[in-house]
Amino acid sequence: MNNDQPLRIGVIGAGRIGKIHAESIATRTPGAVLAGIADVDLAAAKETAVKFNVSLVTADYHDILNDPAIDAVAICSATNTHAHIVQEAAAAGKHIFCEKPIDHSLEKIDAALAAVEKAGVKLQIGFNRRFDANFRKVREMIAAGKVGEPHILRITSRDPAPPPVEYVKVSGGMFLDMTIHDFDMARYLMGSEVEEVYVAAGVMVDPAIGAAGDVDTAVITLKFANGAIGTIDNSRKAVYGYDQRVEVFGSGGMVSVGNNLPNTHVYSSADGVHSEKPLYFFLERYMDSFVAEMQEFVQAVLQDKTPPVVGVDGRIPVIMGMAAAKSYRENRPVKLSEIG
Amino acid sequence: MNNDQPLRIGVIGAGRIGKIHAESIATRTPGAVLAGIADVDLAAAKETAVKFNVSLVTADYHDILNDPAIDAVAICSATNTHAHIVQEAAAAGKHIFCEKPIDHSLEKIDAALAAVEKAGVKLQIGFNRRFDANFRKVREMIAAGKVGEPHILRITSRDPAPPPVEYVKVSGGMFLDMTIHDFDMARYLMGSEVEEVYVAAGVMVDPAIGAAGDVDTAVITLKFANGAIGTIDNSRKAVYGYDQRVEVFGSGGMVSVGNNLPNTHVYSSADGVHSEKPLYFFLERYMDSFVAEMQEFVQAVLQDKTPPVVGVDGRIPVIMGMAAAKSYRENRPVKLSEIG
Amino acid sequence: MNNDQPLRIGVIGAGRIGKIHAESIATRTPGAVLAGIADVDLAAAKETAVKFNVSLVTADYHDILNDPAIDAVAICSATNTHAHIVQEAAAAGKHIFCEKPIDHSLEKIDAALAAVEKAGVKLQIGFNRRFDANFRKVREMIAAGKVGEPHILRITSRDPAPPPVEYVKVSGGMFLDMTIHDFDMARYLMGSEVEEVYVAAGVMVDPAIGAAGDVDTAVITLKFANGAIGTIDNSRKAVYGYDQRVEVFGSGGMVSVGNNLPNTHVYSSADGVHSEKPLYFFLERYMDSFVAEMQEFVQAVLQDKTPPVVGVDGRIPVIMGMAAAKSYRENRPVKLSEIG
Amino acid sequence: MNNDQPLRIGVIGAGRIGKIHAESIATRTPGAVLAGIADVDLAAAKETAVKFNVSLVTADYHDILNDPAIDAVAICSATNTHAHIVQEAAAAGKHIFCEKPIDHSLEKIDAALAAVEKAGVKLQIGFNRRFDANFRKVREMIAAGKVGEPHILRITSRDPAPPPVEYVKVSGGMFLDMTIHDFDMARYLMGSEVEEVYVAAGVMVDPAIGAAGDVDTAVITLKFANGAIGTIDNSRKAVYGYDQRVEVFGSGGMVSVGNNLPNTHVYSSADGVHSEKPLYFFLERYMDSFVAEMQEFVQAVLQDKTPPVVGVDGRIPVIMGMAAAKSYRENRPVKLSEIG
Repeated sequence: MNNDQPLRIGVIGAGRIGKIHAESIATRTPGAVLAGIADVDLAAAKETAVKFNVSLVTADYHDILNDPAIDAVAICSATNTHAHIVQEAAAAGKHIFCEKPIDHSLEKIDAALAAVEKAGVKLQIGFNRRFDANFRKVREMIAAGKVGEPHILRITSRDPAPPPVEYVKVSGGMFLDMTIHDFDMARYLMGSEVEEVYVAAGVMVDPAIGAAGDVDTAVITLKFANGAIGTIDNSRKAVYGYDQRVEVFGSGGMVSVGNNLPNTHVYSSADGVHSEKPLYFFLERYMDSFVAEMQEFVQAVLQDKTPPVVGVDGRIPVIMGMAAAKSYRENRPVKLSEIG
Repeated sequence: MNNDQPLRIGVIGAGRIGKIHAESIATRTPGAVLAGIADVDLAAAKETAVKFNVSLVTADYHDILNDPAIDAVAICSATNTHAHIVQEAAAAGKHIFCEKPIDHSLEKIDAALAAVEKAGVKLQIGFNRRFDANFRKVREMIAAGKVGEPHILRITSRDPAPPPVEYVKVSGGMFLDMTIHDFDMARYLMGSEVEEVYVAAGVMVDPAIGAAGDVDTAVITLKFANGAIGTIDNSRKAVYGYDQRVEVFGSGGMVSVGNNLPNTHVYSSADGVHSEKPLYFFLERYMDSFVAEMQEFVQAVLQDKTPPVVGVDGRIPVIMGMAAAKSYRENRPVKLSEIG
Repeated sequence: MNNDQPLRIGVIGAGRIGKIHAESIATRTPGAVLAGIADVDLAAAKETAVKFNVSLVTADYHDILNDPAIDAVAICSATNTHAHIVQEAAAAGKHIFCEKPIDHSLEKIDAALAAVEKAGVKLQIGFNRRFDANFRKVREMIAAGKVGEPHILRITSRDPAPPPVEYVKVSGGMFLDMTIHDFDMARYLMGSEVEEVYVAAGVMVDPAIGAAGDVDTAVITLKFANGAIGTIDNSRKAVYGYDQRVEVFGSGGMVSVGNNLPNTHVYSSADGVHSEKPLYFFLERYMDSFVAEMQEFVQAVLQDKTPPVVGVDGRIPVIMGMAAAKSYRENRPVKLSEIG
Repeated sequence: MNNDQPLRIGVIGAGRIGKIHAESIATRTPGAVLAGIADVDLAAAKETAVKFNVSLVTADYHDILNDPAIDAVAICSATNTHAHIVQEAAAAGKHIFCEKPIDHSLEKIDAALAAVEKAGVKLQIGFNRRFDANFRKVREMIAAGKVGEPHILRITSRDPAPPPVEYVKVSGGMFLDMTIHDFDMARYLMGSEVEEVYVAAGVMVDPAIGAAGDVDTAVITLKFANGAIGTIDNSRKAVYGYDQRVEVFGSGGMVSVGNNLPNTHVYSSADGVHSEKPLYFFLERYMDSFVAEMQEFVQAVLQDKTPPVVGVDGRIPVIMGMAAAKSYRENRPVKLSEIG
């Protein structure tokens, strides 16, 4: 790229996450221009296009890929289309920001990553939580040696409410849909790969989730290559809201981060002391990180640097999710090397 | 206004606060259009105009006032120009958002408010802290009766570093420059007017501030019409950063709000437990409130409602500042009725 | 004293505070022996004597003073008897621990202190809060220079419920009965004397307190000899319990202490996040400090050292209380030099 | 027992924990009398006896068991003597308070419990943490249904420093020596039995611990009969001090408790915000619970009620410890039914 010129980005998929990225690109990402929007639901694409004054709007994302004025794409379409579009976009020479997961099939992931490598384009995976101020601080402190040698990692990741059962059925299961973010976080924070996974899980929130073949509550043990041990606890339903905490304990100390709140008020009454619940869900909690990941993607392309979350970072958490599902089915620790 | 049409706003003054409002209007205020920018420093005006693709850019704010396509102005110029521009803008039929303070002279303030009233335009004063999520929550809880009858108000308001002494000399003094925000907050939270002020103050941070005829540290007692008592403490220099807290105690309980932090990390080491300092200064802490006040101004105009901070809300804190200065000079409680 | 021998202490007054000191001496004060108990209500004295196996029990405290086997007394009788018993105890050569206040009359205080000086016995005043772990830490940090030069002191001191009106009538008024602890705390923490007091106060809790000639809510401004400014806020009724907090702000930083809680539980539910109210009242909150002050008194006598709270420390807060009452009556700042 | 008479207790073992119980009985347990002290180190026994004025002091604990004036014993001797002394004390008709663990052998435990049952005496096991104000509150809230149906339990239990390696060698291993408290806590809080245990562990603190055949760091997964899942994380060395926290998450909410601190001070400086480390170790943190468990033991005997921690409560955590050790060795989940 000639970084005197802005990066012209086309957004593929104008659903919830596509709209977020379109707005980030249009209003909050220096160096980027929102240059096109595609969605099979043309009305949805048009709504966003009008809002940000974008002229290229289409029901067929190939119009984006075929436009020589487009430098890069943000793939925000349905999960099962990601890997294919990545391949097409790479072939078209576009730089790629792709929402997680790349796919639920390792074969498709590998084909997509091979296409990216062959084309020599940049690829960034949308693990936005790495760009959250809290988790980034934890990573920085570990990297700076503040906790010494890490011994124990604890991740709490609980949603405020389960998705519709229809979604659950096509989601790939909780480990690939929800825990995948925590698997990525574990790798990101510890700077070491996970070698073995053990899962204790169950259906405690909604029997319909169990009937759909999935679980809704889990405690996951991770063994890292560096000897550290991690534990993730997940629930599909925390009545007090979105619970996103991390703690890393090591030879030199401990660093932890808690939830973000809508305000800092504390109310003391005859009934006790009361304060706010966490920000409700991922849109509220992680909005800043969605903006930040897009800004870093744009800078990586403009400055010809490696993006902060690359293809292998999209591949390994999928393997971890598969190992977790196997561990749960077989009630035994499963090595990642058993999977892929 | 026909609220099918966006509100076209011209920003007068392209300094630090003018830039903030320009960006809010251009990117984050639904229903508003950034339609012009004026600054005596034309280069500054142009820089912002280019960024947001604004064609009307001028060194003479009269070009804004004379443009029939402009519906409203945001006055962000030097304090001593506010009252005069308010009068001119009112005469031109523009709705007005005016940064605080309107002026340091009650006569000029009154003339400006009279012009606004005569013209029948909307006027909103830039007491942005009322739109901060923390303070708004306190106000809501008091209004909802959660603290019962308010008895004691405590405001802590400390800056991370004093302004340059050259600025201090023309600032109108700490009470009119810095405490004025706290005076507004006291009125906003308590929903009752202050009748008497007593000030204990001194020069503790920098003797140069004293040499310039001002103080840098103060504890201020307020007596409210409803019988409640308030205390404000100010310092020009808190080494740990911008300290902005409020506590209201009453017959039914207490509500307090603390500082906002850049992240929630807590680090436990052999040396103790450590966490973040508050967000550094007003730009970091109050950015969301700057956006929110502009959004509410635009909605007030579009929907023909009374703005949330009106002319008298700009006038009374100036009287309180004058009473505070008099109390300090004479070391006695001073009634607001002694001033204006 | 020959400090190979324990200090034999007689407790005068077996009311609430007398029982606390008797138990501390009997069970938790190394080097001390509970050697006698006196109370005009002989049954009360006997109850405590039986509990701790004490043989000298009497309705006439002179039996304690006349007993050569008694080395020291703890005066826990009604306030209006303190000064006289101090004089008698000094004349009898007993070391003296005396509950606050010594008296409400400066003349009687001065006579008592003169008697102590003449007799050469030790005198410690029962300002127990100085021995609280929280406040002691604040003092240590100030003394160690951690806050730099102190600029602003804030004390919050609120009771959970007002005393009976009959007590209010004989209490000497809120400033001498309740705020006196805060006046002592202000001197203790800042290591500088107060020179001027200004009071804003009112009757907000119970009109009967006003009818009895007292106030129940106050905000007090203190000017210290070292230039610092302090503020104390008092209420006779905090519905959420006993509120005892301190904050000291200075050129190098701020140190604050909050309330102690019965446990650290935090409950997060759909209704918000909830935690405990402060420990209910002074018996719960300050029990450890009652023990600690007695331990230090005993060590001061055994090791022939100056006690940590001496006669003048009992005298000055009374002057501050008188100045506060005068300031409230006259609505003006009052210098302590106007009083005594 | 005739509960008009105090309970006369003999303490067997005058080491660290024996001294604590002796002092509780002598000074802080209404209804109890410290009636005898035995230790093979007679000097240690005498030291405590003198302090509390106890005449029966002996190197042979049979002197305690044979004394008809003794009603109950507190067994605080070395672990490998507990089971045998329990049997002898039961045979002598004494009520028994026994420090944990009863033994490391299920056979010896069962023999001891059978002797207690046969003799019809009371037996309470020294799982003192159940009497801690924090954990008790969690139990109360779960029992009251505040968290709804419990789904996830998290226990963090980390020591400030490892014991001497010589101790490690005879301790029975970390799971029976340290985690045993957490196993008891898990059962106490959840009100449901654990059925299966999985352990990930390692030697991260000190290779000498590994050389002695033990681990020093562990993450343990528990599956409860009611379907809930628990996780315990242990470390022998937290540089910031004794870390004792619990969190229970369920369908109705979450309750958590944190560490207790020596004071509540918060220091804000240019370097950040700083506060206290947790209370150093179990003596500081759990002193109140040691007193409370003895008070409840005495009341259980005096009022002929079931003690709050009975024989089976001493047996099951030992089984859990054995299952944990087996799980670690075999790297697989182990059912408790495989053990005993």
